[in-house]
Amino acid sequence: MKLLEERINKDGQVFPGNILKVDSFLNHQIDVALLKEMGKEIKRLYAESGVNKILTIEASGIAIACMAAEYFECPILFAKKSKTKNIANSVYKTQVHSFTHGKEYDVVVSKDFISEKDTVLIVDDFLAEGNALLGLIDLCNQAGAKIAGCAIAVEKGFQQGRERVEAKGIRVESLAIVESMQDSSVTFKTQ
Amino acid sequence: MKLLEERINKDGQVFPGNILKVDSFLNHQIDVALLKEMGKEIKRLYAESGVNKILTIEASGIAIACMAAEYFECPILFAKKSKTKNIANSVYKTQVHSFTHGKEYDVVVSKDFISEKDTVLIVDDFLAEGNALLGLIDLCNQAGAKIAGCAIAVEKGFQQGRERVEAKGIRVESLAIVESMQDSSVTFKTQ
Repeated sequence: MKLLEERINKDGQVFPGNILKVDSFLNHQIDVALLKEMGKEIKRLYAESGVNKILTIEASGIAIACMAAEYFECPILFAKKSKTKNIANSVYKTQVHSFTHGKEYDVVVSKDFISEKDTVLIVDDFLAEGNALLGLIDLCNQAGAKIAGCAIAVEKGFQQGRERVEAKGIRVESLAIVESMQDSSVTFKTQ
Repeated sequence: MKLLEERINKDGQVFPGNILKVDSFLNHQIDVALLKEMGKEIKRLYAESGVNKILTIEASGIAIACMAAEYFECPILFAKKSKTKNIANSVYKTQVHSFTHGKEYDVVVSKDFISEKDTVLIVDDFLAEGNALLGLIDLCNQAGAKIAGCAIAVEKGFQQGRERVEAKGIRVESLAIVESMQDSSVTFKTQ
């Protein structure tokens, strides 16, 4: 998606260790107008997939999920990173390794809100090693929900995430695929 | 806001300890169409306030903040609950006591995204004791930003949050104010 690639080139920052910082418009400060265009593109990609629910993970997936949900006219469900006393006992649970925080954490969704009747689109801001997506896929599988596919804002195309998700037979669509990052320059894969 | 009150009466659940569970439409599964109406109402309330940025706190404030931002045509900024290595060193930091989790945690925003040039609307899903709002107000004050006010989805009118925030001279608007909760019945304050 040209608009997103241009924005990454304009406002993204590259740091050592393959860190791409996009927190001026994507995952700390959020340019809602840009995300709305991204939501529209996600709808175009999955228009024929019968999606009735969008699943994401807190916190930075929530904004994109909301903007996509406006086009799908369906609710979103965000997986929570720890069990709080406000969540029912009845949850599906999986474990995810966080690249950013360097640790494992539990991720839960309430059994009340996902079932074998759902066709789920999984949405997230980043795809790197794919750990978050694999966790969300596991939650859908536990619920018996059908998975339409995954829609990602920024994929790090030089990491293994896509391969690991596609190996499960799940479709992956990314709005921007970073091929390489050097100094302050980001090169995208042509789609 | 009648639409929200009706939805709380229909789908909210009351639990011992003054817990109102609205996770089927507000803070786990999210009814994006309802939140869009809430965003429109927030814009009506603060239309004349010169808001150029919406500040919220992860995770459950993000969705409402996004839907309001569509009407204000401004970016959102969400405060993060812990410092990750993807955030610049240069942050404003405050401490918030979580009623839900029963502990203190650090809340940060990058200094890059809030300054004395901003007129900020603070948005969150719940107002109870007001700890999260007071933390966000502190972050705005550190940045020298003007605060237009606070916009809340559900206020627990029998707790001290509004009083504590208004004591700082800050305007508070809540879309639904719960006056009392008994068994499964919720009574709202007439606004």
